[in-house]
Amino acid sequence: MVNCEWLKVPSALLDAEARAAAEARQGVLTKPPGALGRLESIAIQLAAMQGKEKPSLDQVRIVVFAGDHGIAAEGVSAFPQAVTTEMVRNFANGGAAISVLARVLHAELEVINLGTVVDPGPLPGVSDQTLGAGTANFAKQAAMSEEQLARAMNIGRQSAERAVTQGVDLFIGGEMGIGNTSAATALASMLTDISVESLTGPGTGLDTDGVSHKVKVLQAALNLHRDKIDSPVTALRYFGGFEIAALTGAYIASGQMGVPVLVDGFIASAAALVAIKQCPGTADWLLFSHASAEPGHKHIIDALNAEPLLDMGMRLGEGSGAAVAVPLLRLACALHNEMATFADAGVSSKK
Amino acid sequence: MVNCEWLKVPSALLDAEARAAAEARQGVLTKPPGALGRLESIAIQLAAMQGKEKPSLDQVRIVVFAGDHGIAAEGVSAFPQAVTTEMVRNFANGGAAISVLARVLHAELEVINLGTVVDPGPLPGVSDQTLGAGTANFAKQAAMSEEQLARAMNIGRQSAERAVTQGVDLFIGGEMGIGNTSAATALASMLTDISVESLTGPGTGLDTDGVSHKVKVLQAALNLHRDKIDSPVTALRYFGGFEIAALTGAYIASGQMGVPVLVDGFIASAAALVAIKQCPGTADWLLFSHASAEPGHKHIIDALNAEPLLDMGMRLGEGSGAAVAVPLLRLACALHNEMATFADAGVSSKK
Repeated sequence: MVNCEWLKVPSALLDAEARAAAEARQGVLTKPPGALGRLESIAIQLAAMQGKEKPSLDQVRIVVFAGDHGIAAEGVSAFPQAVTTEMVRNFANGGAAISVLARVLHAELEVINLGTVVDPGPLPGVSDQTLGAGTANFAKQAAMSEEQLARAMNIGRQSAERAVTQGVDLFIGGEMGIGNTSAATALASMLTDISVESLTGPGTGLDTDGVSHKVKVLQAALNLHRDKIDSPVTALRYFGGFEIAALTGAYIASGQMGVPVLVDGFIASAAALVAIKQCPGTADWLLFSHASAEPGHKHIIDALNAEPLLDMGMRLGEGSGAAVAVPLLRLACALHNEMATFADAGVSSKK
Repeated sequence: MVNCEWLKVPSALLDAEARAAAEARQGVLTKPPGALGRLESIAIQLAAMQGKEKPSLDQVRIVVFAGDHGIAAEGVSAFPQAVTTEMVRNFANGGAAISVLARVLHAELEVINLGTVVDPGPLPGVSDQTLGAGTANFAKQAAMSEEQLARAMNIGRQSAERAVTQGVDLFIGGEMGIGNTSAATALASMLTDISVESLTGPGTGLDTDGVSHKVKVLQAALNLHRDKIDSPVTALRYFGGFEIAALTGAYIASGQMGVPVLVDGFIASAAALVAIKQCPGTADWLLFSHASAEPGHKHIIDALNAEPLLDMGMRLGEGSGAAVAVPLLRLACALHNEMATFADAGVSSKK
């Protein structure tokens, strides 16, 4: 068991009074009851999370965690490992999808490099918190040492703490790491009853043979380590990555501090799975943004009993799917906060 | 056959060159090919519609058409008919869902009253283009005279022309009219092979008995008029409403002028069905925003071979579902236009 005392802090509780007030408000807005569908339930959930009848999402923080994966040596990715570092540079230069989305959404973007094989050197807007030149190859040994795991989770926790200190209304975690669908798949299979075959997909673009090979590599790795896994965070140490551990830490800490989280796709949902298995109260603080095109995602989503807001066939990571869902949450709040009531507007209610 | 000469003008053609340029651009942006899913195809479709490699959606126009329905006398709605006028006032006062959405999206909102049972009197921001105190009861006679139909369609056409003249990038039509799910259901059943039972739903909130009664009323009305229906616009005259006819006219005219349209839910999709059956080229210019919770919507969507972007369980009308999808389209454009290419960013492509 990894020594992370802070993981024992319980999650914050939702505000039942604010939820009830928000529910009551939805019932008197000038629309047939329920006619705004999930926009109503989102507003009510955010009210319960933020502890106020009228929730707001002005300040959104997006933190992208980057790290390389030793498992890439097994030929499980369609892109070369250098791409992790190249994409960190692209984040710094504002050219990546998440850079564009953060700009348009007026969200603050923080990029944290937890350890790439190729050192990108100092970059504006990228925080260098390197724990090593990528993780070890989990086909052969644990991906991380206990210290690396504890530090990676703590880096995630600190990013959430910074967000809360700075008054952020919503936390989004993103990731970049060539090979990380392999890590997420192994983790998810280890922590659920879902088979590796069901969870394994093309990632950034493997062909059928590539996917078959990936299944074999992951199955062998699970067989190699299974007996040593005595907790969700131990599974994270063996199969995860720096960025997945940071996401897990950020989610758990967000729940402890009571800040709403919007979860991205496949990798982020695997981190959410670890977070919820380790600290079940975290579940109350996570909203799931989108159904990824990565085929294993729906199995993780089902295991979490979650309902993603969007299904746009996205599979990019970086937090991009969560970012794309931000306007829906903002519109849900605006409708909830600004629509007239039947009484205000002098509109007749149902016969 | 209604005399509307302008309906004979063919729809504009999509720009194949702009589409090809946009497709090529998507292929070199710094992401695995296809990883942005539908955001990629949306950007490419908009490029083809706007005739430029980099489409934009800065100026969005929302026009809400309101009108009452004689069929309401048959007890087919959960809300009293006075609500149509009350909601027109609510639009004018900025308290309705679509008012809030238009404000947040910086979209221009135009409200046109085509004829309500209760005269709301002059209202700021509401254009009074009354064609009568609501339509006639189509359980007994045609809903509209030929002149009313022609004028209603022309009002829709003029709203699209104003939008184009003013440089609008996207047209959204909304509607308000107690009883209009009945009109839309009868129309859709008349123009497709879909049964009234499959298409009829609770609208603003009928119970099971109410829905059964609605089915009987609509089936009887279809039987009464079926022999007289010789064209899609004749079906529109018998079963439609002023606001549905205006939407139909606006969609057809938008296609003729080559401006992209984002279609709302059940009522708007019925109008889109009439528009496409009457002028098939209109289909190229319509994007479908959301899957309505009104159960018949999926049948109309299937008949149109359309794929709505969102499924949020909404069933409000007013153009609200389309408005909620606007940020997705804008983000699709921003990603398409602003992301770096592999060459620009020095990122390696697939192995």
